[in-house]
Amino acid sequence: MTQDGRVVRGDQTRQRILDRAMAIASQDGLEGLSIGRLATDLGVSKSGLFAHFGSKEELQIAVIRAAEEVFTREVVKPALRTAPGLPRLVELCGGWLDYSERRVFPGGCFFYAAGAEFDSRPGRIRDLLAQARRDWLRLYEQTIRDAQQLGQLDADVEPAQLAFEFDALATAANSAALLLDDTSAYQRSRAGIRTRLRALATRPEEVP
Amino acid sequence: MTQDGRVVRGDQTRQRILDRAMAIASQDGLEGLSIGRLATDLGVSKSGLFAHFGSKEELQIAVIRAAEEVFTREVVKPALRTAPGLPRLVELCGGWLDYSERRVFPGGCFFYAAGAEFDSRPGRIRDLLAQARRDWLRLYEQTIRDAQQLGQLDADVEPAQLAFEFDALATAANSAALLLDDTSAYQRSRAGIRTRLRALATRPEEVP
Repeated sequence: MTQDGRVVRGDQTRQRILDRAMAIASQDGLEGLSIGRLATDLGVSKSGLFAHFGSKEELQIAVIRAAEEVFTREVVKPALRTAPGLPRLVELCGGWLDYSERRVFPGGCFFYAAGAEFDSRPGRIRDLLAQARRDWLRLYEQTIRDAQQLGQLDADVEPAQLAFEFDALATAANSAALLLDDTSAYQRSRAGIRTRLRALATRPEEVP
Repeated sequence: MTQDGRVVRGDQTRQRILDRAMAIASQDGLEGLSIGRLATDLGVSKSGLFAHFGSKEELQIAVIRAAEEVFTREVVKPALRTAPGLPRLVELCGGWLDYSERRVFPGGCFFYAAGAEFDSRPGRIRDLLAQARRDWLRLYEQTIRDAQQLGQLDADVEPAQLAFEFDALATAANSAALLLDDTSAYQRSRAGIRTRLRALATRPEEVP
């Protein structure tokens, strides 16, 4: 019996800490997280926080794992519930843009922010973030490959090239919306992706 | 007479501080700058650094201004020396990718890193970085408009849309090269830009 009351309460506390920490990290960066600040924000003791996470780096890693769960729930799973091939590809692009635009994290895409913060700092944090990005690009590539095998998309296109381009157009919208307060960037991103998809689809009229 | 020996030495010291600060900021962020760390790195006194910059925010602002000078010298000026219209557009995209790939700043594009760091933090720093991004996008747009007026590019394309797409493809290469150690991203970026340019150029064979 591990699911007794204490464990459930402990899990709830841990999740409450992680929710707050993800919000802070998406706006002020993973380095902006401090156990002292979190303790003050949440009205818990620093020693209680240390009991949960042990160190700042452990906290940062737990925050990245928690953000992966959110991303999977909000973006990956809805896409995997969509028919494979072109419909799923449309959902991957659109779902990511919605996730950014809805501000699932207050600072926009958690992984865009954290990736830019740690891309020049070798270590466990960068490795985790790089793996998350690779997994995302691979999901794009596999979906593009499926669409090609289903005869929905030009078979001459290199999946990794197209995945790079869709991801580029999507993350640029996140960046422009945040830095420039330019929400029209989401429309530009959708338009750019649609133009490219219609140029490559075997039945362009099926691209929404 | 302000150009006496003391002033020149002061200017040289200031530039040496800014050079080191730009390198740190491009890798560890503008928040990673501290007057104490810089003083240790450069073997100067903290009071000397305070005499030059007064506060951490003043230092951050001076670093952004210095990075703008570098960017103007390395990317903007070479493009402005190129013939207006399509050749200049090709040089803007290519010059930016070279600037990122050559690691003019050790952490890749200074403005990509700093923009992602401050895009959710209202204040003078964010305002400056947003202005720099807007200036860059306007230069793209003007160059696209010139190419249209010169009959080199499809007149139906909205300049802001195309500027958004080129900037997206370029910054994504910077991001992938840094986080994923994937230098092939520069080739993907160049290929994506070339495909789009050839599709829109009135004489596609003139797109290098």
